[in-house]
Amino acid sequence: MISSLQNPKVKAAVRLRDRRARDRTGQFLIEGYRELLRAVENCYPIETVFYCPEWFQGRNESELLERCRAAGARLLATTPPVFRKIAYRDRPEGLVALAPQRHRTLDAPGPCPAGTPPLYLVAESIEKPGNLGTILRSADAAGVTAVLLCDPRTDLFNPNTIRASIGTVFSVHTVECASAEARAFLARNGVRLIAATPHADMTYTRANMRGPLAVAVGSEQYGLSTQWIDAADATVQIPMFGQVDSLNVAAAAIVLLYEAVRQRRAMAGP
Amino acid sequence: MISSLQNPKVKAAVRLRDRRARDRTGQFLIEGYRELLRAVENCYPIETVFYCPEWFQGRNESELLERCRAAGARLLATTPPVFRKIAYRDRPEGLVALAPQRHRTLDAPGPCPAGTPPLYLVAESIEKPGNLGTILRSADAAGVTAVLLCDPRTDLFNPNTIRASIGTVFSVHTVECASAEARAFLARNGVRLIAATPHADMTYTRANMRGPLAVAVGSEQYGLSTQWIDAADATVQIPMFGQVDSLNVAAAAIVLLYEAVRQRRAMAGP
Repeated sequence: MISSLQNPKVKAAVRLRDRRARDRTGQFLIEGYRELLRAVENCYPIETVFYCPEWFQGRNESELLERCRAAGARLLATTPPVFRKIAYRDRPEGLVALAPQRHRTLDAPGPCPAGTPPLYLVAESIEKPGNLGTILRSADAAGVTAVLLCDPRTDLFNPNTIRASIGTVFSVHTVECASAEARAFLARNGVRLIAATPHADMTYTRANMRGPLAVAVGSEQYGLSTQWIDAADATVQIPMFGQVDSLNVAAAAIVLLYEAVRQRRAMAGP
Repeated sequence: MISSLQNPKVKAAVRLRDRRARDRTGQFLIEGYRELLRAVENCYPIETVFYCPEWFQGRNESELLERCRAAGARLLATTPPVFRKIAYRDRPEGLVALAPQRHRTLDAPGPCPAGTPPLYLVAESIEKPGNLGTILRSADAAGVTAVLLCDPRTDLFNPNTIRASIGTVFSVHTVECASAEARAFLARNGVRLIAATPHADMTYTRANMRGPLAVAVGSEQYGLSTQWIDAADATVQIPMFGQVDSLNVAAAAIVLLYEAVRQRRAMAGP
């Protein structure tokens, strides 16, 4: 039972909120029941779980802890004040795990059920962890083959990314890579590239999204860079009927992904 | 020029980050160039603008300040440290305005161009200011008639709502009301109600969204309450192909809104 706020393991865990500490150690934190469950269900390696039953919100935490132990994790009980220090969230759930960062490469292109053309989401230079997490949650829902995070400007292992993703950071096949690398990968695999930009003439619903496809969205501040727009097979815009001229990037991503889903599943209206 | 961090006007402004102070005074803060511009362009009353040219990010701030002054606002210059104290954001933009909260009621049903059937978004008990702001930004883009914030659990004037909305909190006709009131309003006006819930059988793209319509989404944690589901003319689900069983509420809202836009504008794909 860890009861000291000065315990070196506790201090090391708290430091992982900071990107430099994550980069230096190659570790990160998984906070919360849903997030840890998603990690375990996807066989993500867990090193240590700090837990504190006084903070548990539900009734399945003990079972999840047992699954972590069975998978090789070390379980460390803490007192409520120590857990309060480790937890990043306002309402802690009594579970924070420490895990090694696992980075995927384009060598493994992501799962694709037989007979289904692949669907990739390209997200270029996303800045806000919350947007990145929401994008991953939407990508999970739309059943994408993989998310290609190109020239990333926030790390996948930021606590706010993991929280907004509600753990889909562990279920969605996500590759961090350079834009040039991603474009070469898509071209090599015969994947049609549709780039979203407010300056396009074609409405997104008029683009053919039925075959092997990648849809690309760009950073919050600048949108997609010209390298992506120039390389695209088609550029599309989402029509805007109000006063502002762009959508939130996560909103744009899910509109495009579900249009692809609609066309592929032939879910046409009544 | 305000140069004291202890200036009572400065201290009163800082207190408005807190909901209790907003509720007590009926005031709130508008931070940032885009947000203040959107307020001014929608003739939102501004009482005071704190400004600090050393923090300006662009070149149009002075012109915007003149528009505020012409509209009756008092302009107060501050030193950079004082502005740093007033600003809520990590990267201040040199503009923070103080304004009275304006609450709309269902008596004014929102603008609706002649010949266009109204489109309402019902958002029940949203908890997170960032989600609410993103919902308003999407509602602006989709050209909704009004957003009905039913039984709200976060206030429209939270700094994170205004930021995520990028000022569309001033362009979108938004009404805070009780759910029962909103349902009576919709029924009285012959508006078809479509409720989104993961438990529905019908895929959202199969619902007829062409006439006078309200689409309803529920809180982050619980979704729509049964009072909305029972009152709906149709319930729909957004198909999920991944491991998690729900979308972020702002993501669900924009998928539904743009399906309504697609059906209404006959933007059907090739």
